[in-house]
Amino acid sequence: MLCQAALDLPVRTRVLDPDPHAPAARCCDEFVVGDFADAATVRAFGAGCDVVTIEIEHVSVTGLRALQAAGVAVYPSPDALEIIQDKGAQKAFYRAHHLPTADFWLAETRAELAAYVTENPALLPAFQKLRRGGYDGNGVRHLPDAAALATAFDAPSVLEARVDAALELAVVCARATDGTIRAFPVVEMVFDPHTHLVTALAAPAAISPETAARATELAVRTCAAFGTVGLLAVELFLTTDGALLVNEVAPRPHNSGHHTMEANYVSQFQQHLRAVLGLPLGDTTPRAPAAMVNLLGAPDGGDGPATVHGLAEALALPGVAVHLYGKTRTRPHRKMGHATAVATTTAEATALAARVAALIRIAAAGF
Amino acid sequence: MLCQAALDLPVRTRVLDPDPHAPAARCCDEFVVGDFADAATVRAFGAGCDVVTIEIEHVSVTGLRALQAAGVAVYPSPDALEIIQDKGAQKAFYRAHHLPTADFWLAETRAELAAYVTENPALLPAFQKLRRGGYDGNGVRHLPDAAALATAFDAPSVLEARVDAALELAVVCARATDGTIRAFPVVEMVFDPHTHLVTALAAPAAISPETAARATELAVRTCAAFGTVGLLAVELFLTTDGALLVNEVAPRPHNSGHHTMEANYVSQFQQHLRAVLGLPLGDTTPRAPAAMVNLLGAPDGGDGPATVHGLAEALALPGVAVHLYGKTRTRPHRKMGHATAVATTTAEATALAARVAALIRIAAAGF
Repeated sequence: MLCQAALDLPVRTRVLDPDPHAPAARCCDEFVVGDFADAATVRAFGAGCDVVTIEIEHVSVTGLRALQAAGVAVYPSPDALEIIQDKGAQKAFYRAHHLPTADFWLAETRAELAAYVTENPALLPAFQKLRRGGYDGNGVRHLPDAAALATAFDAPSVLEARVDAALELAVVCARATDGTIRAFPVVEMVFDPHTHLVTALAAPAAISPETAARATELAVRTCAAFGTVGLLAVELFLTTDGALLVNEVAPRPHNSGHHTMEANYVSQFQQHLRAVLGLPLGDTTPRAPAAMVNLLGAPDGGDGPATVHGLAEALALPGVAVHLYGKTRTRPHRKMGHATAVATTTAEATALAARVAALIRIAAAGF
Repeated sequence: MLCQAALDLPVRTRVLDPDPHAPAARCCDEFVVGDFADAATVRAFGAGCDVVTIEIEHVSVTGLRALQAAGVAVYPSPDALEIIQDKGAQKAFYRAHHLPTADFWLAETRAELAAYVTENPALLPAFQKLRRGGYDGNGVRHLPDAAALATAFDAPSVLEARVDAALELAVVCARATDGTIRAFPVVEMVFDPHTHLVTALAAPAAISPETAARATELAVRTCAAFGTVGLLAVELFLTTDGALLVNEVAPRPHNSGHHTMEANYVSQFQQHLRAVLGLPLGDTTPRAPAAMVNLLGAPDGGDGPATVHGLAEALALPGVAVHLYGKTRTRPHRKMGHATAVATTTAEATALAARVAALIRIAAAGF
């Protein structure tokens, strides 16, 4: 979607991805198959580029540092990315910058975690998050009680106190090269309790203007603390007693900003491009209440060449926009696309988006 | 822009264009360099496609008929396209179908035209339009008086009575495979008197609801008469005495629908795709008043690799969306992109779009 947005600007795009069938291959100017976690590959890929940016966190910081040293503009900065890649360092960053966040403890192994929890049983229930390599809800484990420790990750992780969250919110900010920050309106995210994937999003969140102002202020402060150029999506918990805590951030286009394509004057994708290209940030004013649902490979839809069912029925609904990513293969819970609904109220948009989610089924042949 | 819209749908695209640097080459799945006016090329290109459509009229009807005979769905139909390709046949079609249109006369040569006009001096002032091959205002000549006949085209042409047009309007309609027709709101087009190119567009047109209803009804009737599947952009004259006349039609995405990307729930590009793919048509309700300006190669900007000046200033204006087409070379008056402004009134949007047109300059190096 970043490359799709780039088609409108006077810029040529080159993309690095290990999958030759990556969606971006269809609409970038140059596509390079390679491992973005490999320093030498990243360095070779970015040589000759004016600007290098990312759409996933797991890119070699060493490779990006080499590009930066060679004079390539790298956004987000490798220093910030290094912190964000490590959920332990990310949490320490919040603490150091007095950004409110849930209590946490770091452990190197499952044994260390178990020993710690056995000594401090009040720590549970909690979430264990892998320090590195998580994505789309992968790398997160709920530990309701001591028995669950047997299934905990045996790897460096963050044990995070379970927050009594009334709502999970997100604010997509963008920071320009001149330090200007603009935030999209606060959205509410609903996660699937099993997959930890964003199921649905409502924009704007159903919170008071005062809470929205506090959430925006905290997100902007977080964005300023990292000092990155480009988007910074800030996920927040609104606790049952009204406190706001930073959960985690993503320095790239984020699922919590997908609705901006239809719901705002500038999409998060163009906003990111504007920022990293040194262009002025766009207006983040909302155009209409909106809701977004992810379109995932059906849980019982098998693994194989994808077929989309129910598309015509979904497109017949006014105010609905469907974005399928052109991924040729489906598997259970794979993100295959998303749909946005705009309406006169957020509740209406949410109902419309839920209808789309119920109508569209993505499955392999025979499923 | 059609391919850009297709990226969101579960469809693969193959494009035929003689220019290896055509904008669509950047975002289609397969790009074939070839002459779409050549029947054998079109036939070979379309073999194996499920659906073939066009973005320019000058495609070999013979080639399209061969594809249709081979079982490929061809939209618009070759029969309708053949009529539309010939402005003489197009005018005769309007007359035959009782669709009001300006009076016209057909001439094979300049001499024939001159003889006719000499016998009927009251025919002038008039416009001479080449029957075939015109595009973007090329192939149109204003004949204010008999002296101008010396510069008239010496080719088969239509002599068309100059209409006392109060406004030039356009209605982009779409017809689905089941015959359903939906029209976007009526827009007003302002043409450059010298280049005959659309300079600016205002949506909706500043006309009474009664006139808008009549214009929509005439456009829908025209669309139904052609019976094509996909878009049919219908250009209309609103005369000073309130009559509506069909000027000409285009069975494809059209300059008069570019603003729909920001001003409507469905863009003309997705609407065309929905129609030709047998999907339900989208809602054409307007989201906001809008205006569109074409971004042309500067008249004094030379011919060469294009540089875009003033983009940052234009993007700083709220409500403005800029679409540059990725054409690498500019030449005077070449369509290099367009910009849309949305605002609370059409007048505001028009003023905003005019500012963008004044800010952006596209020129070759050294100009």
